[in-house]
Amino acid sequence: MNSEEHQNDLGTQRIEAFSDGVFAIAVTLLIIEIGVPHLEGGQTLADALKELWPSYGAYVLSFLMIGIYWANHHFLFKLFTRTDHVFLMLNVFFLMCIAFLPFPTAVLGEYLRDSEQRDVAVSLYAIGLLLPAASWFSVWLCARSRGLIDEQLAPRYVRFLTLEYLFSNIFYASALAISFLNAWLALALVVGLTLLYLFPPRKAQYTNND
Amino acid sequence: MNSEEHQNDLGTQRIEAFSDGVFAIAVTLLIIEIGVPHLEGGQTLADALKELWPSYGAYVLSFLMIGIYWANHHFLFKLFTRTDHVFLMLNVFFLMCIAFLPFPTAVLGEYLRDSEQRDVAVSLYAIGLLLPAASWFSVWLCARSRGLIDEQLAPRYVRFLTLEYLFSNIFYASALAISFLNAWLALALVVGLTLLYLFPPRKAQYTNND
Amino acid sequence: MNSEEHQNDLGTQRIEAFSDGVFAIAVTLLIIEIGVPHLEGGQTLADALKELWPSYGAYVLSFLMIGIYWANHHFLFKLFTRTDHVFLMLNVFFLMCIAFLPFPTAVLGEYLRDSEQRDVAVSLYAIGLLLPAASWFSVWLCARSRGLIDEQLAPRYVRFLTLEYLFSNIFYASALAISFLNAWLALALVVGLTLLYLFPPRKAQYTNND
Amino acid sequence: MNSEEHQNDLGTQRIEAFSDGVFAIAVTLLIIEIGVPHLEGGQTLADALKELWPSYGAYVLSFLMIGIYWANHHFLFKLFTRTDHVFLMLNVFFLMCIAFLPFPTAVLGEYLRDSEQRDVAVSLYAIGLLLPAASWFSVWLCARSRGLIDEQLAPRYVRFLTLEYLFSNIFYASALAISFLNAWLALALVVGLTLLYLFPPRKAQYTNND
Repeated sequence: MNSEEHQNDLGTQRIEAFSDGVFAIAVTLLIIEIGVPHLEGGQTLADALKELWPSYGAYVLSFLMIGIYWANHHFLFKLFTRTDHVFLMLNVFFLMCIAFLPFPTAVLGEYLRDSEQRDVAVSLYAIGLLLPAASWFSVWLCARSRGLIDEQLAPRYVRFLTLEYLFSNIFYASALAISFLNAWLALALVVGLTLLYLFPPRKAQYTNND
Repeated sequence: MNSEEHQNDLGTQRIEAFSDGVFAIAVTLLIIEIGVPHLEGGQTLADALKELWPSYGAYVLSFLMIGIYWANHHFLFKLFTRTDHVFLMLNVFFLMCIAFLPFPTAVLGEYLRDSEQRDVAVSLYAIGLLLPAASWFSVWLCARSRGLIDEQLAPRYVRFLTLEYLFSNIFYASALAISFLNAWLALALVVGLTLLYLFPPRKAQYTNND
Repeated sequence: MNSEEHQNDLGTQRIEAFSDGVFAIAVTLLIIEIGVPHLEGGQTLADALKELWPSYGAYVLSFLMIGIYWANHHFLFKLFTRTDHVFLMLNVFFLMCIAFLPFPTAVLGEYLRDSEQRDVAVSLYAIGLLLPAASWFSVWLCARSRGLIDEQLAPRYVRFLTLEYLFSNIFYASALAISFLNAWLALALVVGLTLLYLFPPRKAQYTNND
Repeated sequence: MNSEEHQNDLGTQRIEAFSDGVFAIAVTLLIIEIGVPHLEGGQTLADALKELWPSYGAYVLSFLMIGIYWANHHFLFKLFTRTDHVFLMLNVFFLMCIAFLPFPTAVLGEYLRDSEQRDVAVSLYAIGLLLPAASWFSVWLCARSRGLIDEQLAPRYVRFLTLEYLFSNIFYASALAISFLNAWLALALVVGLTLLYLFPPRKAQYTNND
C-alpha cells in the first residue's frame, strides 16, 4: 500500500457501521425499560398488563422513530462523499441523542396515565425527539458548509433537504411548547409526524439527471 | 462513480446487517431479565435458583425462536433481489416484534408457577410468538406482491413458503386461543413447533433446475 | 448471478458476524449486573464499593472467558470450509450458553462473600463455564464427523484439538464436583485454567506443511 | 486457497469489528443506568427529572469519552500492519476497561449531589477513565515493542503518540490524586481534557512524506 493512500479521516462506511450498532442497540434496549409487573393487592396479571398500555405505545413510537432515523441515516450517507473530524464528532453527538431516547420513552410509559405528571412526561418526550432532530440538522449543515456533500447533487434537492430538516425541528419545538398547554395534543402531533415519516424519502436528484 | 448508480433503496445487505444486530442483541438481552434471586426468610440460594426453572426454560425457548428467525431471515433474504421503502418499513415492524419477545419471556418466567396468573402469562407469550410470525408473513406477502422475489424461483416453491408462513400464523393463533382453556397444552404446542423449526428449511427450488 | 451459485447454507462469515455480535453484547452486558450500591445505616460509599470486590473479580473473569472464546471462535472458524444446518443449530446452542454467563457471574458476585451460599454460587458458576465448553465440544465433534473441517488440516492437529476440548470439559466438570467440597479450591482451579487460556492457541498444522 | 495463506493471527479488521461492537454497546448501555424516577412524598416529576442533572452530565461525558476512544481506535488501527496474540489479549483487556465505564458513570450520577460521598464517586470515575488510558497505553507499547506498527511511520510521530498517551495517563492519575482533595476541581480537569480530545488527532506522518 502506498503511504499516500493512508487517510486520517474515517470513511463514511466505518461511521455507518458504528451508527448502525448504536441504532440497533438503542432500539432493542427499549423493551428493557418495560419491567415485569409486580402484582399488588389482589391485582390480576391481566389487569397489570393492560395498565402498561402507555409503555407499549411508547415502545412502538420510539422504535419507529429510531428505525426511521436508521433508514434516513443510510439514505443520507450515500450523499456524502467524504468526512472530516468535525462531521465525525457531530455524528457522535447525534448518536448520543438517539441513545438517550429510551429514557424519555420509559418516563412517558410510566407517567402518561398520571394526570398530574403527564405534561412533564410528554414535554420530556418532545425534548427526546427534538434532540436527534436538532443534532441531525447540525450534521447536515456541517456537511453542507464543509463541502462533504456529493457535488453532483442538484442544488434544489440540497435546499429541499435543508428545509425538510428545519421544518422537522420547528415541528418538534412546537410540540414541546404545546406540551405545556395540552399534553394529548402535543402527543398527537408527534405521532402524526412519525406516521408522515413512514412515507418514502424523496428520491435524490442529480444535476446531470435534469 | 457514475450518478446513475446512486440508489435510493437500501440493498438487502444493509438491512440484513441491521437485522442481525437486533437479533443478536434481543437474544443476548434475554438473560438480563433473569434477576439475581434475593433470599427471603431462610430460603437457601440452591432453592431460589431451582425455583427459577420457568425462567431458564423461557430463556432457552425464546433464544431458540430468535435464533431460528435469524437463520431463516438470512435464508429468505437470499431469495430477494431488491428492496423498496414499504418492504423496509415492514422489516422494521418485524424487528419491533422480535425485539419485544424478551418482555413476554420475562413475564412467562415470573408467572408460570403462579396457578392463578399462568393462563395470562402463556397467552401473552403466545402473542409474543404470533407477532413476529404475522409481521414476517406481511414482509413475505409484500415482497411477493411487489416483485422483490428472485424471478428464477420456482412458483411452487414460492407457494410452499406462503403456505408454510400461513400455517405458522394459524398455529400460534391456535396456541393463543388454547391458552385461555389450558395453559400447559398451549405451551406444549409452542414448544413442539419450535422443535419442528429446528429441522432445516426446504432447499430453494429454481425454475431452471426443474 | 447463476442460479447454481445459490446456497441454502449460511457461509461461515455470516455465522461469525452473528456470533461476534453475541460475544460483544454478552461481554458488555456483564457490567449491567453490578448495580450501583445503595447505602444503608451510615455505610460510606467507599465501604460499599470495596464490598463489591467479588463482583469486580467475577466481571474480570467472565470478560476474559468470553474474550478468549471470541478469539478461539475465529481461530477455529478458519479451519471450517463449509457449514450445514446441524452445525448452525449447534452454534446457536453454543451462543445460548455464552449469553447465559452474565447470570452465574452476577450470582457469584452477589453471594461469594456469603459463607452459607458460597458453595452453590461457585457451583452455578462452574456450570456456567461447563456449558459453553460442552456445547463448543459438540460444535467441534459435529464439524469433524460431518466433514466440515478443512481437509488439508493435519490429522494429528485435529486429534490435538479434540483432546484439548475434551480436557477442558473434564476440567470444568471437576471444578463443579470440587465446588461441593471446597468452593475456594474450585474457584482457584477455574481462575487457573482461564489464565492458561491466555496463552496463544497452538498454530494450525496442515498436511502439506509437514 | 493455498494453505500457506492460512493465518493464525486475527487481522486488524476482525479486532476492529469486535471492538466497534463493544464501543457501540457500552455507549448505548449508559442510558440504562439512568432509572425512571419514582416520586416520593409529593415530589413532582419535573423536580425529580431536574435532580437527575448529574446523571445527564455523566451520560454526556462518558458518551463523549467512549466516542472519542472509538474514533481514535480506528485512527490508530490504521497504523498497525499486523497483530499477534499478546496484542489481541491486551486489546481485550482495553475493551474490558471501556465496558467498565458505565458503572463509575452510574455511581457518579447517583452520588455527585451527596456532599459526603462526592469525593469517592469522583475518585471512582477518575479510576474509570484512568483504566482505559492505561490499558490503551499498554496496547500501544506492545505494538511498538513487537514491531506491529507500520514501518513507514515517521519515528518522531511514533514518539509523539507515545508521549501523548503517557501524558494522558499522568493527567488522569493526577485527577485521581486531586479527587481526594477537591472533587469539583478533579471533575473540572477531567471535563477539560475530554473537551481537548474533541480536537482532531494530529495527522499521521510517514518517513517518505518528509
